[in-house]
Amino acid sequence: MTIRIPLTLPENSYEILIAPGCLKQIGTEISSLKIGKKVLVVSNPEIFSHYGETVLTSLESAGFEPSTHLIPAGEAYKTLDSISKIYDTALDYRLERSSAMLALGGGVIGDMTGFAAATWLRGINFVQVPTSLLAMVDASIGGKTGVNHPDGKNLIGAFYQPRLVLLDPDVLKTLPDREFKAGMAEIIKYGVIWDKELFQQLESAPDISDYDSIDPGLLQTIITKSCQAKADVVSKDEKEAGLRAILNYGHTIAHAVESQTGYTSINHGEAVAMGMVAAGKLAVKLGMWTQEEATRQENLIAKAGLETSLPLLDTQSVLHTLTTDKKVKDGKVRFILPTEIGAVTISDAVTPELIKEILETDI
Amino acid sequence: MTIRIPLTLPENSYEILIAPGCLKQIGTEISSLKIGKKVLVVSNPEIFSHYGETVLTSLESAGFEPSTHLIPAGEAYKTLDSISKIYDTALDYRLERSSAMLALGGGVIGDMTGFAAATWLRGINFVQVPTSLLAMVDASIGGKTGVNHPDGKNLIGAFYQPRLVLLDPDVLKTLPDREFKAGMAEIIKYGVIWDKELFQQLESAPDISDYDSIDPGLLQTIITKSCQAKADVVSKDEKEAGLRAILNYGHTIAHAVESQTGYTSINHGEAVAMGMVAAGKLAVKLGMWTQEEATRQENLIAKAGLETSLPLLDTQSVLHTLTTDKKVKDGKVRFILPTEIGAVTISDAVTPELIKEILETDI
Repeated sequence: MTIRIPLTLPENSYEILIAPGCLKQIGTEISSLKIGKKVLVVSNPEIFSHYGETVLTSLESAGFEPSTHLIPAGEAYKTLDSISKIYDTALDYRLERSSAMLALGGGVIGDMTGFAAATWLRGINFVQVPTSLLAMVDASIGGKTGVNHPDGKNLIGAFYQPRLVLLDPDVLKTLPDREFKAGMAEIIKYGVIWDKELFQQLESAPDISDYDSIDPGLLQTIITKSCQAKADVVSKDEKEAGLRAILNYGHTIAHAVESQTGYTSINHGEAVAMGMVAAGKLAVKLGMWTQEEATRQENLIAKAGLETSLPLLDTQSVLHTLTTDKKVKDGKVRFILPTEIGAVTISDAVTPELIKEILETDI
Repeated sequence: MTIRIPLTLPENSYEILIAPGCLKQIGTEISSLKIGKKVLVVSNPEIFSHYGETVLTSLESAGFEPSTHLIPAGEAYKTLDSISKIYDTALDYRLERSSAMLALGGGVIGDMTGFAAATWLRGINFVQVPTSLLAMVDASIGGKTGVNHPDGKNLIGAFYQPRLVLLDPDVLKTLPDREFKAGMAEIIKYGVIWDKELFQQLESAPDISDYDSIDPGLLQTIITKSCQAKADVVSKDEKEAGLRAILNYGHTIAHAVESQTGYTSINHGEAVAMGMVAAGKLAVKLGMWTQEEATRQENLIAKAGLETSLPLLDTQSVLHTLTTDKKVKDGKVRFILPTEIGAVTISDAVTPELIKEILETDI
């Protein structure tokens, strides 16, 4: 079944296409965008070994002239230096303003390719083909692109919308289990912040912990509902002036966890899972959320096979990291906190003392 | 006399403020933008020695907390590496999304500061305070930001609009004569492509060759008319989808000249002057423009004290450079060519042979 979700914006609207097996139709889909012939496919060696040929063949069949740029896998390569190497390839292949860059990979590849597309010749066409569950439901939609600064995640970047997002759930069969669970963390997030029904569907499913165990129909449903939630929020607030901040639920502490643990031992989705549990505890302590619903959230996260407790962190360093986060305003750290399942609020009531308490007593 | 030109865009409209002495009011003007307290002033050491204190004092008086980042002067520093150093300063000063970067300098400082502002935290507030005539009438307006790639000018960048452009013609008193003439080249350009009356005013003025010789009233008038021309064009075509390309009149060959001569011996305005004369000759050869008007253009450029002949260039290298230009579409080099004074057209009728003829016989 092919699903097309429109993401409507004042300028630069686009579609999110979700269909098992659609990777083979990528050439035809891009043809309908009426762009130039040159498409630079940016990927990492492992993903490209699985799906590169399918994508290149489909592009060539549709009359495109694809070229390829590979970046080693991992957050450690999400740097300005990697972007500089994409620029060199773009110049080698003489990409023009009408050309496209296509991200074939997870969130790191998508963020970097998008930033390169946003900044080469002041912006060329960009197509997202996310291959991880996390990138499908989160990073590939909404136009956030960028790289890390040595001292902070995603500090360098741009808002730049893709022309098309193409999701083929079949590619999840080669995704490591741990990455699948990480994606599930973001899906649970949409349940908590936006879509109570999605939360309940996840609660009542027999198994959501890996690709082989989840019902394929349910998988497409929860991907679709997550994309719809993200599209709803982004279309109301493209540049994160207000509402869009709710998508950062769980992310404030998650960024601190990732920063403290060097972006390696704990992946983004795992950090978000821990961050959501911590944010839930903060909300309960502030009297904003019931213990019962916080427990339901924690149980669902555990059901997905995700860790719910924070690792041992250096409190002072975490507080330092929080104050360099993009979401800081006039020095105050703002938290996204649940008020009921399906709804959150933005709060600056969380004090450093309360953060300290959560970090030091609840591990 | 204070003039405010509105630049109206679908999103991100702003004002161009033109008034002698307005540098002292910069704090008050920025206050009206309702932004955060932190303002990072980016400049070069020489400009900053002239005007830094005035700007910092005005910002402090209005309650801002300004900080400073200096970059050595010159196109050679317009690199991704310089941007990376601005990011480091932005982090040191904990700039937030509500903070601003303020460009105090010529086009190089403006382009780089704009790109850094566009890409720090995915975009913070940006204020342009151009101190060269060329930056006042061209680079500071319209949102083109970026840096050079080692193999091509402005290949890396973003469209990112300032919140305010503040022009104080009094600062031109410290501008070297050669830079003044370079700015006059762009002013003449607006006469040729858009504003016949501006062209005639320049033709009938007693002297337009330097700051001390030009009538101060005329200077404010021609700056205003040039800014109005640019605002007219940009408001109709923010992202250079069509019309805006006419602003590149003279620039296709100018970029080749600058690239060939290493961006040092010939400055941008001087190269544009030569490029306009060359484009005029191409237009005459193609039967699109009269020899009489082409001669009027050449005479006006000479009156401004600008060189009208191209330097000796390597034809093959120039043709190579032209094909890597951003304005290339499906391999065809497009030229902006005059059809009468005040009007131009976009043409792909210029063949490599014709370019060769202009380069090799008309020096």
